[in-house]
Amino acid sequence: MFFASDNSGPVHAEVLQALAEANQGYQMGYGADEMMDEVRDRIRSLFEAPDAAVYLVINGTSANALALATLADPWDTVFCTPVSHIHRDECNAPEFYSGAKLTLVAGDDKMSPEALRTAIEGEGNRGVHGPQRGPVSITQVSECGTLYTLDEIRALGVVAHGYDLPLHLDGARFANALVALGCTPAEMTWKAGVDVVSFGGTKNGLMGVEAVILFDPTKAQEFELRRKRGGHLLSKHRYLSAQMAAYLRDDLWLRSARMANDNCAHLAEGLRTEGAVFLYEPQANMIFARLPRHLHRRLIDAGAVYHMEGEELDGPDENALLSCRLVCDWSMQEAEITRFLALISNTAPAGA
Amino acid sequence: MFFASDNSGPVHAEVLQALAEANQGYQMGYGADEMMDEVRDRIRSLFEAPDAAVYLVINGTSANALALATLADPWDTVFCTPVSHIHRDECNAPEFYSGAKLTLVAGDDKMSPEALRTAIEGEGNRGVHGPQRGPVSITQVSECGTLYTLDEIRALGVVAHGYDLPLHLDGARFANALVALGCTPAEMTWKAGVDVVSFGGTKNGLMGVEAVILFDPTKAQEFELRRKRGGHLLSKHRYLSAQMAAYLRDDLWLRSARMANDNCAHLAEGLRTEGAVFLYEPQANMIFARLPRHLHRRLIDAGAVYHMEGEELDGPDENALLSCRLVCDWSMQEAEITRFLALISNTAPAGA
Amino acid sequence: MFFASDNSGPVHAEVLQALAEANQGYQMGYGADEMMDEVRDRIRSLFEAPDAAVYLVINGTSANALALATLADPWDTVFCTPVSHIHRDECNAPEFYSGAKLTLVAGDDKMSPEALRTAIEGEGNRGVHGPQRGPVSITQVSECGTLYTLDEIRALGVVAHGYDLPLHLDGARFANALVALGCTPAEMTWKAGVDVVSFGGTKNGLMGVEAVILFDPTKAQEFELRRKRGGHLLSKHRYLSAQMAAYLRDDLWLRSARMANDNCAHLAEGLRTEGAVFLYEPQANMIFARLPRHLHRRLIDAGAVYHMEGEELDGPDENALLSCRLVCDWSMQEAEITRFLALISNTAPAGA
Amino acid sequence: MFFASDNSGPVHAEVLQALAEANQGYQMGYGADEMMDEVRDRIRSLFEAPDAAVYLVINGTSANALALATLADPWDTVFCTPVSHIHRDECNAPEFYSGAKLTLVAGDDKMSPEALRTAIEGEGNRGVHGPQRGPVSITQVSECGTLYTLDEIRALGVVAHGYDLPLHLDGARFANALVALGCTPAEMTWKAGVDVVSFGGTKNGLMGVEAVILFDPTKAQEFELRRKRGGHLLSKHRYLSAQMAAYLRDDLWLRSARMANDNCAHLAEGLRTEGAVFLYEPQANMIFARLPRHLHRRLIDAGAVYHMEGEELDGPDENALLSCRLVCDWSMQEAEITRFLALISNTAPAGA
Repeated sequence: MFFASDNSGPVHAEVLQALAEANQGYQMGYGADEMMDEVRDRIRSLFEAPDAAVYLVINGTSANALALATLADPWDTVFCTPVSHIHRDECNAPEFYSGAKLTLVAGDDKMSPEALRTAIEGEGNRGVHGPQRGPVSITQVSECGTLYTLDEIRALGVVAHGYDLPLHLDGARFANALVALGCTPAEMTWKAGVDVVSFGGTKNGLMGVEAVILFDPTKAQEFELRRKRGGHLLSKHRYLSAQMAAYLRDDLWLRSARMANDNCAHLAEGLRTEGAVFLYEPQANMIFARLPRHLHRRLIDAGAVYHMEGEELDGPDENALLSCRLVCDWSMQEAEITRFLALISNTAPAGA
Repeated sequence: MFFASDNSGPVHAEVLQALAEANQGYQMGYGADEMMDEVRDRIRSLFEAPDAAVYLVINGTSANALALATLADPWDTVFCTPVSHIHRDECNAPEFYSGAKLTLVAGDDKMSPEALRTAIEGEGNRGVHGPQRGPVSITQVSECGTLYTLDEIRALGVVAHGYDLPLHLDGARFANALVALGCTPAEMTWKAGVDVVSFGGTKNGLMGVEAVILFDPTKAQEFELRRKRGGHLLSKHRYLSAQMAAYLRDDLWLRSARMANDNCAHLAEGLRTEGAVFLYEPQANMIFARLPRHLHRRLIDAGAVYHMEGEELDGPDENALLSCRLVCDWSMQEAEITRFLALISNTAPAGA
Repeated sequence: MFFASDNSGPVHAEVLQALAEANQGYQMGYGADEMMDEVRDRIRSLFEAPDAAVYLVINGTSANALALATLADPWDTVFCTPVSHIHRDECNAPEFYSGAKLTLVAGDDKMSPEALRTAIEGEGNRGVHGPQRGPVSITQVSECGTLYTLDEIRALGVVAHGYDLPLHLDGARFANALVALGCTPAEMTWKAGVDVVSFGGTKNGLMGVEAVILFDPTKAQEFELRRKRGGHLLSKHRYLSAQMAAYLRDDLWLRSARMANDNCAHLAEGLRTEGAVFLYEPQANMIFARLPRHLHRRLIDAGAVYHMEGEELDGPDENALLSCRLVCDWSMQEAEITRFLALISNTAPAGA
Repeated sequence: MFFASDNSGPVHAEVLQALAEANQGYQMGYGADEMMDEVRDRIRSLFEAPDAAVYLVINGTSANALALATLADPWDTVFCTPVSHIHRDECNAPEFYSGAKLTLVAGDDKMSPEALRTAIEGEGNRGVHGPQRGPVSITQVSECGTLYTLDEIRALGVVAHGYDLPLHLDGARFANALVALGCTPAEMTWKAGVDVVSFGGTKNGLMGVEAVILFDPTKAQEFELRRKRGGHLLSKHRYLSAQMAAYLRDDLWLRSARMANDNCAHLAEGLRTEGAVFLYEPQANMIFARLPRHLHRRLIDAGAVYHMEGEELDGPDENALLSCRLVCDWSMQEAEITRFLALISNTAPAGA
């Protein structure tokens, strides 16, 4: 019953197989391997973006930080939500790489066009004294498990571009969002105004590979130099390429994302039946719910692993509702979900 | 006949096997995986350093840059050779991470204690105006394929410590050096005055894993934060741990290094017989040699791949001696070396 | 009728005189001038801090950025208010110098101990993933013209120190606060828990000099190196020293601050009489008030100069209340204030 | 007998007078003062560069660091001499501001076109692995007191521009060079290929003002933002403007430089008569000479102040020749030079 993170499961067997197949003889290093050509072509084709620049890095933090550094000047500010990964979970990496600061757009899991406009208007109007307006960064699936609709992304793109600001999409859970929305990669990105994507693979069955896709390749060389300068260019790059190639081959990325989302829907349905309170409507593979303390205790005692979102398990009131995050990955066994739900249903009404 | 780099060969089958074995169920991420405990214990034991802090990263550039950033203040200068990887091949990563600059110690492949002392004396004597004296960084095996003896390292350690400066060892080819010198890891490091080691695995059969070992763990937490801030902390860290664990198990690292060094010795012997001129005496798994242009042409036409060290293959004088670098990795087939040497011996006297 | 900034008036005649007197013969540069000894002694004595490290720089931005860089690690976050100068008006200088980011403590002109505690609790609890807790920075006089009482500073110091975090005070208007509170420099700083002060002079009659005072001199050498590395060490330092010496001699700093505060009190009283709405209670030398559009128009047409705080002078509703900031410096002529108030009183009830 | 630095003398009376005259009433801050318009116009006219962007900062380190940061990308390397101020005397400020590193062009006081070409060829040929080629920076007057001829600058400009690299001139002693060469500002700069100048005033009679002149104003806004972000934008900017305006009015800058150079010529002539050995031919206002130890001792005992260039005054051999630097500023009294020379001539043959 491991619901702590989609970073914690195994990689898909097809990926391991691809690594073994790639492990033959010599290959040019540093991204000049043949398999990278396949990856680049495949991504360009999938995204209907024949000119896009495509690079692989090892994780989401480096993908985001390098992408934002390429989009922002050191005197800029990046617009993002208060819960964004780039703000809360990257230990100043975006600031380190870009020199820019972050402006938090009022809101919760997602930013609205109005809030974005207000935030932009609130910056960049003090001459050289304040930071200048820089890129807008959104996360899809959001850090709270919710989704921007295509219309919502489009509306944010319109606002950003209205100020000549680029739009970055942190797609650590890109595939989960795509299958949930049932749209194409192009529709969820450049057709909706997204300029640069961090295209995640790690949370969806890879060992540690994310692609950065720049639809406008003007700054491709700059990105390459930033990647190298950050120590993020791998010599034996073929092992990144091989993973990403396997990911995109035979729709593995979509199959895995569907499995994760289905697992999550199953879990959410069960929780809902038991009366759990959701902090956000689960739309992909993450659930934020409130459960009474005694129930958390029972689950954790039974071996369930998940994050308590800043809540303390120990405390006086056994019926106090405590928040938690439950994440499903592609590899989750149905039996585990069933067992988790059974532990809950043994209980008098869970949730308020 | 691929002699371009020890970064270009496949990974060892035992490493792939270890990845497959590690690919079971859920594991805590970000370095909290169980296999990392094994790795840490094994490295501490191998290095006879029970208190050492041990971290894994994906490549040598990040290992070096993070290590130096932990050792140097932003107003310092790092002492290294003109051919050092940190100076020539890391696209300002050490400067980016540390804020420090580099001072080139006069010399060639290695630095002498006298040259180091002169370089240190030449800095740090201008009050706050010039950079302050920072860490000393040496490379073992050197970038030119040569070795520091234990006495030589010890002498450099004495100089560095005499100025209260720490000594960093870039051990991208640590294992190749160790088997060539026939000493223990402790003897080549802390017993000789080395404070921090970049312990390479990538060039010796791993996909992309290096350990940073801080013998004094005082700055362990700082290193962790720098690693995260640089985007170098992997979520699915177990796949780094698994590689490093396999590397150190059953002496795979030493076996692989011995194979690489033996391949190189075989190649060097053949070249010497044919009269090749060596720029440096080959002591590990790299050869820097000068061959006549017509010979380079024949080799390259026959499919040999290696670096020409800034020389132009095209030119007027067919007998001009052109420098090249030939690197052997563990996976090299003897037949390839034999074929390479046969191509050379078919020739009238190679080299001057 | 110039109320735009206390950065815009002339310097005091005694300061010019001191510059002329300092302009004799040769003096050692870079802070080794004799007058700097006088400044250091005088500040230590004024602050009852015999061990304090004291440095001069040219403006508040460099004072704050260098002070915070000395207090914060690059993976930290600095706690400050949403209106703080370091957040809004220094174009990322604090981030540039420190590498840290800023966390905005909920609130308005000042931060409360409760809000500070909540902000601190909200950071630093995500292991290496989020930024670490760094220094707390408050501004006295606040950017909104209000004052922290000694009790309020003390309470913030208790919170900060409870987390082992240092407390920085941006004292761009230190003297205005001091005379308004009627306390000693020590009482407003280290006795209340302040660890480092940016001690302003520029807004109070100097050309461009601020002192940074570190009550704990442990990091004095680091500060010096950061100042030099930032290009903020002046060769002809005596001209900074001379200004600061004149400032502290014969209580010029207190006399000037009293003049500015008195001018402001006079102006505020007049505005209050006319029914102006204050956004904040004026406590030093700045007023934030709301006046009807037609009144702004009359004032500006008559030559008054001040900031409209993001409001548009042009607009449909002549009675709409628009915010403005009015700053008084020491050099302001009483006749100007009288004239300004007369322009207002000619009007039907100003303000709602 | 103060020959330690041209940073140590007083400022010219005309400059003090200008400060007093500027000290009237209110002025817009941050470079929007009226006197800055005069300065900008005057510099554009003097340099025959009607489109040039002109900014004032407080010292040479910030001028150089900001100029180079505007010209270089963080992955670049800047080409300069081993004795350059940016390399030796700015405590990593150029690296801090630009992110770039420095490549030392072989040579001594000046760089030759051949050495520059060799240095450029030695960088930027390792793909993304090494630093990329960045701006070339030269110093006029050189740090050794010598001059580049116009032809020499032109030749360096041709090399730099041949690689599409900009040429920066550190003109801390710009005026001393100009009067020594007897050319126009345009001839010594953009007509010879210089793209950006640090135009010094501090060493030639100002308190602390240097102009940065970008002949191509494309990056003017970037420069402004970098200046602000570095904490180098002064609020009471009029006091910088007033100094620079006075400096350029009535040829004060040229008169002062001529005085300094004449003082130096007088001193050099006397030293030469006494048989002193010059390390470089004195061409402006600095002398590098070797004198026997006993003579240094006599001079210093008599109150002379100057730098010994790393030599130790105490030592066994009284006749050992020890290097020193003697700098003359505009304010030097002839009597001091006469006294200094008399101390020398009282001696049996000075120098070998």
